Amino acid sequence: MQLAKGVEWTTHICAMLPLVPEGQGLSVDALADYFEVPSAYLAKQMQLLRRAGIVRSVRGKGGGYRLARSPDDITLLDIVTAIEGPMPAFRCTEIRQNGPCGLKRKDCKRPCEIASAFAVAEQTYREALQAKTLASVMQDAAMNSSPEHMVEIAGWVQRQVA
Amino acid sequence: MQLAKGVEWTTHICAMLPLVPEGQGLSVDALADYFEVPSAYLAKQMQLLRRAGIVRSVRGKGGGYRLARSPDDITLLDIVTAIEGPMPAFRCTEIRQNGPCGLKRKDCKRPCEIASAFAVAEQTYREALQAKTLASVMQDAAMNSSPEHMVEIAGWVQRQVA
Repeated sequence: MQLAKGVEWTTHICAMLPLVPEGQGLSVDALADYFEVPSAYLAKQMQLLRRAGIVRSVRGKGGGYRLARSPDDITLLDIVTAIEGPMPAFRCTEIRQNGPCGLKRKDCKRPCEIASAFAVAEQTYREALQAKTLASVMQDAAMNSSPEHMVEIAGWVQRQVA
Repeated sequence: MQLAKGVEWTTHICAMLPLVPEGQGLSVDALADYFEVPSAYLAKQMQLLRRAGIVRSVRGKGGGYRLARSPDDITLLDIVTAIEGPMPAFRCTEIRQNGPCGLKRKDCKRPCEIASAFAVAEQTYREALQAKTLASVMQDAAMNSSPEHMVEIAGWVQRQVA
């Protein structure tokens, strides 16, 4: 079980986008350069974020992607769901209905006990990701960062949108 | 993000193996027939369970796989780890060290805040799976099952090992 690389990339990107000045955005190429990731694949991931209403695109000079809402209002679960889709990791194929002792469909109205146990575990995972906002991730990162590094990032952003 | 089908299959199998009489086992072919799943792929999954010490194989007539320890002592996490391996779903590739504003390696001794947040969420997932034993899954299943169905399964098992 592995999350798509796009989850790591776009989470880092979302944690950096709040540094983009009002009314401006960063191009996919600039974002791909910033993290040294492939531009074509990143373009698809950013489109998934846009469809989910996490980022929006700004047109014209200095245009590109910026956050569509406050980092307080974006959680890690929002990003994972945008990239991975809403399907559970455990996908019950109702094999209890298969084979020589298979249950009849009409006797399977309750979810299978095994599927239920996995669903409970996944729910705790989703709740933990939902409890973590982008604002909180940024706060953690700022506390562990140096002022010089923050200035360096802000300078790079400025050069992209100039 | 999706768990391998083998997790569903082998969890169902492990919940059925306690019905196998002492000293006997079920062949991969019998297990594959029971759940109508492909035998060759299942054989690999059962080997993973064996390497993890969840099942063991019994030789000779009526031989095959049986549980290697009590269903009280096998958790859903044991099965998932046997099939999927121990790697986390979120795999940090340290992209904070990439690109024009990349951090120096020496400044990255603490884990990245983003990787840490995902690790916390995954830990809650693993703990929920660890709290669920096979014995408990079987108890849930027995409560939702009919006596007739239990007799049917036991009869099928008896015919395989006879």
